Amino acid sequence: MITPEKIETEFRKVQDHICTFLLQETGDTYREDQWEYTSGNGGGITRIFSGDVIEKGGVNFSALSGELSEKISTQLKAGSDRKFYATGVSLVIHPVNPFIPTIHMNIRYLERGGKKWFGGGIDLTPYYPVKKDIITFHRMLKSICDAHNPQYYPIYKKQCDDYFFIKHRGEARGVGGIFFDYLNTELDKNCAFTLDVGMGFNQLYTPFLKKYIHHKYSSQHKDFQEIRRGRYVEFNLVYDRGTLFGLETKGRIESILMSLPLKAQWHYDFSPEAGTKEAELTQYLVPQDWASME
Amino acid sequence: MITPEKIETEFRKVQDHICTFLLQETGDTYREDQWEYTSGNGGGITRIFSGDVIEKGGVNFSALSGELSEKISTQLKAGSDRKFYATGVSLVIHPVNPFIPTIHMNIRYLERGGKKWFGGGIDLTPYYPVKKDIITFHRMLKSICDAHNPQYYPIYKKQCDDYFFIKHRGEARGVGGIFFDYLNTELDKNCAFTLDVGMGFNQLYTPFLKKYIHHKYSSQHKDFQEIRRGRYVEFNLVYDRGTLFGLETKGRIESILMSLPLKAQWHYDFSPEAGTKEAELTQYLVPQDWASME
Repeated sequence: MITPEKIETEFRKVQDHICTFLLQETGDTYREDQWEYTSGNGGGITRIFSGDVIEKGGVNFSALSGELSEKISTQLKAGSDRKFYATGVSLVIHPVNPFIPTIHMNIRYLERGGKKWFGGGIDLTPYYPVKKDIITFHRMLKSICDAHNPQYYPIYKKQCDDYFFIKHRGEARGVGGIFFDYLNTELDKNCAFTLDVGMGFNQLYTPFLKKYIHHKYSSQHKDFQEIRRGRYVEFNLVYDRGTLFGLETKGRIESILMSLPLKAQWHYDFSPEAGTKEAELTQYLVPQDWASME
Repeated sequence: MITPEKIETEFRKVQDHICTFLLQETGDTYREDQWEYTSGNGGGITRIFSGDVIEKGGVNFSALSGELSEKISTQLKAGSDRKFYATGVSLVIHPVNPFIPTIHMNIRYLERGGKKWFGGGIDLTPYYPVKKDIITFHRMLKSICDAHNPQYYPIYKKQCDDYFFIKHRGEARGVGGIFFDYLNTELDKNCAFTLDVGMGFNQLYTPFLKKYIHHKYSSQHKDFQEIRRGRYVEFNLVYDRGTLFGLETKGRIESILMSLPLKAQWHYDFSPEAGTKEAELTQYLVPQDWASME
């Protein structure tokens, strides 16, 4: 039977597994902060990467418990029992090179009001997408899902498209991935699937690092990357439930906002010239069935 | 008696008055977009400044009517009558020079569910504040308020401090100013006060432009300005009612998000070294009684 202690142990392994990979693959280093959750019990370990490959990247583990405020409890329709326990690993990597996509991964386990469940997901935000790479990414995700249940990928892929959508811009945050929540049918199996998603990160991100780590880019590419990172900021601050939950539960601000890029730009009424590589991105920001493409 | 038509005419004059001043004072130019409110009736005129003095500045007039969505109607406790009419001028100026503060001004008139009211405010966000300047700014605001009602300044000053507070950072967005809403005691007088606030902008901002337009700065000053502009983005996207109302009512995105700076930065766990000019700013981000200081 799974227990919070076992889950925490496994989640810490996921964090270590990913950090070891990133250290080796990029040559960058990280700074580690161990912190306590001052609004309740528990805490976490935040590791922030920076260097020649990763401009700003955070890999965070946390395990904490506390009590929801009345406000957020009402928003979540959480009932009268406001106690919660949450453990998870979350990661956002913003690379220096505009040809390497930004990636986000999260796995989590929650307990609240007698309920227990797993959630998580991985999604990709490219600046200069290459169709073949996006197809490969989605097929890998599909095979991670299929090993557990062939119904997972189509459902979680759609949930990801629905979730990572910037409503006011009418466009997706990126090219999607998978997103799942409230997995509580068989906790042992749900846990195994969630861990496979977390452990799958290295394999999923490797092709992008390998192919584009030395790709040449100009200051124009960099500007476009920073403009698109503005959209990332818009999504995270306006819509992201994890971010808003973190702010509402008075979590550790620096660990919550580590997902924001080092730099972002907002130009009034910006849209790239037709026919450019930059204009092409728009076509990728419409949900589509990548895994079935040739 | 005031009518929406008269108010619109006066609000347009405020926009013109400010734009003429900014053109003359800065030598910068603006691009004008006339737009229609596609989710209802009406529209607006957005003027975006950029140049050697103003990095990104927007002066927006709008007059529009429509129907609130059920969601936002519930949030606002607006009752069953969801029709609304709104006209206003809003402005945010982000200067190039880190020694000139960012400034925000808004005046508005709303009708909803048989109610009619005025609202507005002006507030200042310096990067390298000078105490004397902040005192002057608040005293000028106080004198604009006092001409109408000696009770206005202390109340609206406090409302500004309460409103422009970045909860998750535990700090004010800037050094405040005034903020008022639901002014409906005597609409003619409320209108006159609101217009005086709008027309007061030029006088309020002049000292900063005059004193610091040629002030020397380094790339370190610029970086600090962009880091602080990250906080501005956080406030506007997480808390600002006007921004969230605009996004929810499917307003013109570019006119709503013109308030965002050209560039912003987020460094993990950034805090300036003790004893530096940058560290001094923190002391200014705690509400205090500027107008009474020597």
